[in-house]
Amino acid sequence: MRKIEVIQNILEANETIASRNKRLLDKHRVCAINIMSAPGAGKTSLLLQTLVRLKSRLNIAVIEGDVASTVDAEKVQGEAKAVVQINTRNMPESCSLMAAMIEPALEDLALDDIDLLLIENVGNLICPSEFTLGEHKRVVISSLPEGDDKPIKYPLIFIDADVVIINKMDLLPHVDFDIATFCQSIAGLNPEAEVFQLCCKTGEGIGKWCSWILEQVGNNLPRNLV
Amino acid sequence: MRKIEVIQNILEANETIASRNKRLLDKHRVCAINIMSAPGAGKTSLLLQTLVRLKSRLNIAVIEGDVASTVDAEKVQGEAKAVVQINTRNMPESCSLMAAMIEPALEDLALDDIDLLLIENVGNLICPSEFTLGEHKRVVISSLPEGDDKPIKYPLIFIDADVVIINKMDLLPHVDFDIATFCQSIAGLNPEAEVFQLCCKTGEGIGKWCSWILEQVGNNLPRNLV
Repeated sequence: MRKIEVIQNILEANETIASRNKRLLDKHRVCAINIMSAPGAGKTSLLLQTLVRLKSRLNIAVIEGDVASTVDAEKVQGEAKAVVQINTRNMPESCSLMAAMIEPALEDLALDDIDLLLIENVGNLICPSEFTLGEHKRVVISSLPEGDDKPIKYPLIFIDADVVIINKMDLLPHVDFDIATFCQSIAGLNPEAEVFQLCCKTGEGIGKWCSWILEQVGNNLPRNLV
Repeated sequence: MRKIEVIQNILEANETIASRNKRLLDKHRVCAINIMSAPGAGKTSLLLQTLVRLKSRLNIAVIEGDVASTVDAEKVQGEAKAVVQINTRNMPESCSLMAAMIEPALEDLALDDIDLLLIENVGNLICPSEFTLGEHKRVVISSLPEGDDKPIKYPLIFIDADVVIINKMDLLPHVDFDIATFCQSIAGLNPEAEVFQLCCKTGEGIGKWCSWILEQVGNNLPRNLV
């Protein structure tokens, strides 16, 4: 039982810091979106597509979470207003971003000059589901080559998602993935989730996703708190 | 520092149980292989291909690790001599198999009737690298759609692997993946690792992988310990 208590304490401490992060973001009218997926599902590609299409309309900052390397931060550097890289390799919990890692990153950003903060989490379908960061919305990307059974096998991350993205739609003729089966599983776990089908490589479906982002930035800021 | 100490204790406790598991496997001349990858890279497909090709020559048992569901165990049930399902969802560390989860599974198996134990770990490129299970060999699968940068971004799991498999070779014309770049990264991290290129869907390259398995079962059992 002792180990369970320790983990409970870590989760509670995380919630406290996440609430503090959210209050700070609200104060500065920054909408924050936590983007999660398995490794290689297309988080960085989605960031790049979003930045290219929305950078003329919004001031967008990015926090890049990776176990090691700065390859993703380098890819988005030219398109974002600001980028903060977090490497989790030598941190006690290296398998997910945690609220305590986001807190100093927020101090590094000029929050008054930012409308939208996109947070790319570490590539992992399990651990990030347990740690909120202070974000306003949670997005999970599944890609076709992973198979349509992922919601059944990794349910928690899908249950808590506001949006589920099906990426790499260009590979549909080449892989065994049944869109209806996947969508049924999502509807069973989380009927409120919005599902977008898109392809970051070809740009198919990105417009609808960007409209959703604009809606969040416009509507979801709790202006009564400012 | 306290949190780091707790995690250190968990890792040390895991090592002790893993050594006990390995002694038990050696006593019964069972060769155990821990198969790890990101979600959807093809662990279950590799198991199925291996079972179909080797079940007439070896007695093969399977341990299936999943956060939730029994879909993978159901897929291999007909081909393996025995299957044990471990669901980690309600366990304190749900992001990886741990040696303490394998120990009771070994008690459930008739080890004297088994030559080869294939352990399918939870789909995750981070956490399983920290927890040995008592296995003789560690295998990591990367699949082409994930991209060729995974060794740089998730180095630890590749550093400790005996074998790295590149799966879904049939998708090479449809994705951006440079085999040479990937192999260079592996050679830099872990020059001893054997690399197999294969495709579980078409069967391409599976023969070479199965020869490697037969070699492990034949040569790697420490018969002096029996």
